[in-house]
Amino acid sequence: MGITLGPNQYGKAEVRMVTVQRSGPVHELRDLTVSTALRGHLERTHLTGDNSDVVATDTQKNTVYAFAKQEPVGEIEDFALRLGRHFTGEFSHITGARIRIEEHGWQRISVDGEPHDHSFSRSGDERRTTEVTFDGDRVRVVSGLTGLTVLKSTGSEFHGFPRDQYTTLAETDDRILATAVTARWRHHGTTGDWAASFGEIRRTLLETFATKHSLSLQQTLYAMGEAALLARDEIAEIRLSLPNKHHFPVDLSPFGLTNENEVFFAADRPYGLIEGTVLRDGEVAEVDVP
Amino acid sequence: MGITLGPNQYGKAEVRMVTVQRSGPVHELRDLTVSTALRGHLERTHLTGDNSDVVATDTQKNTVYAFAKQEPVGEIEDFALRLGRHFTGEFSHITGARIRIEEHGWQRISVDGEPHDHSFSRSGDERRTTEVTFDGDRVRVVSGLTGLTVLKSTGSEFHGFPRDQYTTLAETDDRILATAVTARWRHHGTTGDWAASFGEIRRTLLETFATKHSLSLQQTLYAMGEAALLARDEIAEIRLSLPNKHHFPVDLSPFGLTNENEVFFAADRPYGLIEGTVLRDGEVAEVDVP
Amino acid sequence: MGITLGPNQYGKAEVRMVTVQRSGPVHELRDLTVSTALRGHLERTHLTGDNSDVVATDTQKNTVYAFAKQEPVGEIEDFALRLGRHFTGEFSHITGARIRIEEHGWQRISVDGEPHDHSFSRSGDERRTTEVTFDGDRVRVVSGLTGLTVLKSTGSEFHGFPRDQYTTLAETDDRILATAVTARWRHHGTTGDWAASFGEIRRTLLETFATKHSLSLQQTLYAMGEAALLARDEIAEIRLSLPNKHHFPVDLSPFGLTNENEVFFAADRPYGLIEGTVLRDGEVAEVDVP
Amino acid sequence: MGITLGPNQYGKAEVRMVTVQRSGPVHELRDLTVSTALRGHLERTHLTGDNSDVVATDTQKNTVYAFAKQEPVGEIEDFALRLGRHFTGEFSHITGARIRIEEHGWQRISVDGEPHDHSFSRSGDERRTTEVTFDGDRVRVVSGLTGLTVLKSTGSEFHGFPRDQYTTLAETDDRILATAVTARWRHHGTTGDWAASFGEIRRTLLETFATKHSLSLQQTLYAMGEAALLARDEIAEIRLSLPNKHHFPVDLSPFGLTNENEVFFAADRPYGLIEGTVLRDGEVAEVDVP
Repeated sequence: MGITLGPNQYGKAEVRMVTVQRSGPVHELRDLTVSTALRGHLERTHLTGDNSDVVATDTQKNTVYAFAKQEPVGEIEDFALRLGRHFTGEFSHITGARIRIEEHGWQRISVDGEPHDHSFSRSGDERRTTEVTFDGDRVRVVSGLTGLTVLKSTGSEFHGFPRDQYTTLAETDDRILATAVTARWRHHGTTGDWAASFGEIRRTLLETFATKHSLSLQQTLYAMGEAALLARDEIAEIRLSLPNKHHFPVDLSPFGLTNENEVFFAADRPYGLIEGTVLRDGEVAEVDVP
Repeated sequence: MGITLGPNQYGKAEVRMVTVQRSGPVHELRDLTVSTALRGHLERTHLTGDNSDVVATDTQKNTVYAFAKQEPVGEIEDFALRLGRHFTGEFSHITGARIRIEEHGWQRISVDGEPHDHSFSRSGDERRTTEVTFDGDRVRVVSGLTGLTVLKSTGSEFHGFPRDQYTTLAETDDRILATAVTARWRHHGTTGDWAASFGEIRRTLLETFATKHSLSLQQTLYAMGEAALLARDEIAEIRLSLPNKHHFPVDLSPFGLTNENEVFFAADRPYGLIEGTVLRDGEVAEVDVP
Repeated sequence: MGITLGPNQYGKAEVRMVTVQRSGPVHELRDLTVSTALRGHLERTHLTGDNSDVVATDTQKNTVYAFAKQEPVGEIEDFALRLGRHFTGEFSHITGARIRIEEHGWQRISVDGEPHDHSFSRSGDERRTTEVTFDGDRVRVVSGLTGLTVLKSTGSEFHGFPRDQYTTLAETDDRILATAVTARWRHHGTTGDWAASFGEIRRTLLETFATKHSLSLQQTLYAMGEAALLARDEIAEIRLSLPNKHHFPVDLSPFGLTNENEVFFAADRPYGLIEGTVLRDGEVAEVDVP
Repeated sequence: MGITLGPNQYGKAEVRMVTVQRSGPVHELRDLTVSTALRGHLERTHLTGDNSDVVATDTQKNTVYAFAKQEPVGEIEDFALRLGRHFTGEFSHITGARIRIEEHGWQRISVDGEPHDHSFSRSGDERRTTEVTFDGDRVRVVSGLTGLTVLKSTGSEFHGFPRDQYTTLAETDDRILATAVTARWRHHGTTGDWAASFGEIRRTLLETFATKHSLSLQQTLYAMGEAALLARDEIAEIRLSLPNKHHFPVDLSPFGLTNENEVFFAADRPYGLIEGTVLRDGEVAEVDVP
């Protein structure tokens, strides 16, 4: 019985690119990490080492840089669309592409209360993300964010879960709830005001996390996803991955002290991991969180 | 138009467990990182915060530890199967589970040329892995490894790739080829001599990487997968993820020196990323590399 | 010839503690990583295993948590002083202590334009730091920050450096200058308005980085240090560690494009590393950056 | 009152270099990370931005690569000595240098039981290290290792420590002892059989960890250091940094099970940290562990 090549892709991962738009003395800074992956008729290189169909990953990297010069990068969704269209349009044997971009935020340094023209400080761990997938004629745009760490110091309960022989967890009606949000939402189309859409969804996720009284992290997840879908018609589904970053109240009773949810140990591992998709009726869930 | 809960799962990630089997003075050491994820009828907690169906992730963690005491851990595939059967069998609303385990290797410290009874040193970054998935009646066992970094200092070429306006890469008939292997292979069944299977596949992957003259990393990937399938009938497919860890010859000509592939800069980012599945005819590819 | 125990210390590293101050509905959140290290007459445990002098590292951890309950944490310098005084005062054989604290920032989530009472998002990578050292009767307070990543897209030159047979670097009168600031400054005394001092020094460092036209990162370093010393009389010296996070203009000429400092490759390694102390006349440099 | 430049240094950090020695079909592989730091009369660049004295860090990087071609790298101590001599000898205003090198191990892939000529797998996390310091006429060679993770599953006790109001730790006469060894030892001289010295000290450290019955990690530290000094006359002192990687027995009693030191939770943070120097009588401790 024979052996075959199955699904495969290849590309250049984590191209680190910073661009400076210099229109006058005020500079605009963009900081992107771009990963390209191409799919198609790639049997020859796998089976014989004939590379006639292999757009070198070095070429893919060059293309990212050249495209950033030829036209302002713009929103990351648009930049990913341009790259994907190029790779699938230019090479007949390349029939699919997946372009992933992470954008790292920078803010202007404030000098005497005024934002500086060309000096910036990095905003932190959070990145805005996109993944644009070309599959034959179909193009799918997913936007998102990752590394948004949030915590509420009250307004979170967890009880009513089943107790079996391995259950020791106490029920609680007041705990810290903390997570690092990774969210990815799929757009109906391939055009739009990406920045406005992103800003509004981010704001909605944050506000819902803050204000939704939580009986479980699952409930919070659903509420966040639902709120995002209600806020923005242009998205079809949203996938959330929420690690439950446990904060355990320290037992201070041996020291004659009562810990009234004031002193917590922030644990590294293990952590709970809650993942789920919220989507409009009639949609099929397509987005996975890697 | 309404909004619905889509695919979802939850569990405890990265439970760090070390076990010591003490049968006489010679101790056996096991070092596992276990992640459990459960699926099923979980609408209530998402929609209303009613946790009657939520086997707490803390309970999942406890179960991992208790199971390790009740019976020797054995091969990680068997341990994952036991955990998955328990979670899907014990709770009627839990209809699916995904158990992932990474095993970290330790070797005995040598004292006067003899392996010590109870002292060990850690073997490095490489981990043996498994992922066992329960989906209703179906059970799927995937084994694998990750973090196996390999390099060949010759026996690798790359040329014949298409040249477009963005291509600058020189062709080469002698380069360093280096990668960190992540491999995952799916078994036909749910029983077997997991350790022998793993050992033989690992050996085959290493030997094929070493001996296959490479015209592209894709060709090496296919050869490695094919060899694994030829070596072991019990597996249906194998998925490989091979980052191309670039080693660039340093240009020494400004210093009046000729670099005959002797001095290389080992780059961090970007890196090529080659991913592909090799499978037996008639099989459907199911394994993804996260 | 004999063998002796030399300098030594021991303690608990990276105690992760989050505290919530609940005075009414508005919660105050603090997120600290505390490391304690004790020194003294510790020969017995090293030479014989007699632990009569070893304040267990577990006890040190407990003390951190208990102290956080007994009194509000306050500024990290004060908290470190309290811990160090306790350890050196309580145990006669403990004659020295080094308490290090990193504080992770959180900001209130904004809901309808108002800061939320008990929901927060993490501010990023930057941490405020302190290291308080007790050595017999002497107490030294060092404050600082780390992980403050900054970049200026112009206003930086580098030329006039010596050229030997190994020099290939081109001179430039316009480059990106980027670094991740680690700064530590030593106070004259052990009391003060730590928060005001920190805020002003941080502001000064940022403004000087932004506005100082740079002929070398060394010059920028000195200017930042000098400005901090001029801004705040209470500090005796400041040590800066500035990795030069290289941003290389991409050569776009093969694609018929001219890169006018618009598209950069942000490199990971290697990086320049500039370290230096700026101090008042008459002071002796004591602060090292680890 | 004036402000002055204090101690300072600058250089290129983490130059990643892989060399291949191709004498016939059998290749020798070396994998180094080199960091150079220079000191001297560097006031001009700090105070005025005049770079006449600044050997560019890019030049330092080039020198590392060129030196690796001009002569086989050899032992890392010798390579560091060559680099340091060059920088301090070539430039009159450079009066000091610190060269740090980490060597990453690789082993030959075994094919049909024979070591392959040019294919290698990486040995793991452990690195051999050196730090050579030039200070005027004085040259100091420190050798070492880092990332050597070891564990003993018995033969470790901890009791007899003082109990104060914050002590809750139970005494134990049988626990897991695990650590990741960082060791650095200073040589009397600047010549020697570095490889033999390293091999013997590494072996001694491992054997002592394995065989020394431990009443405290401090006792183990001293025994390891003493054994190294007894084994090799050429070293004057040794500094060890031993994180106590806690393995806590899981409480299985709620599940009706007795945990006889068989199932452990391997904690990430916090961890104990034991640091100490062992030295020959008459020597002054100079080595710090960063």
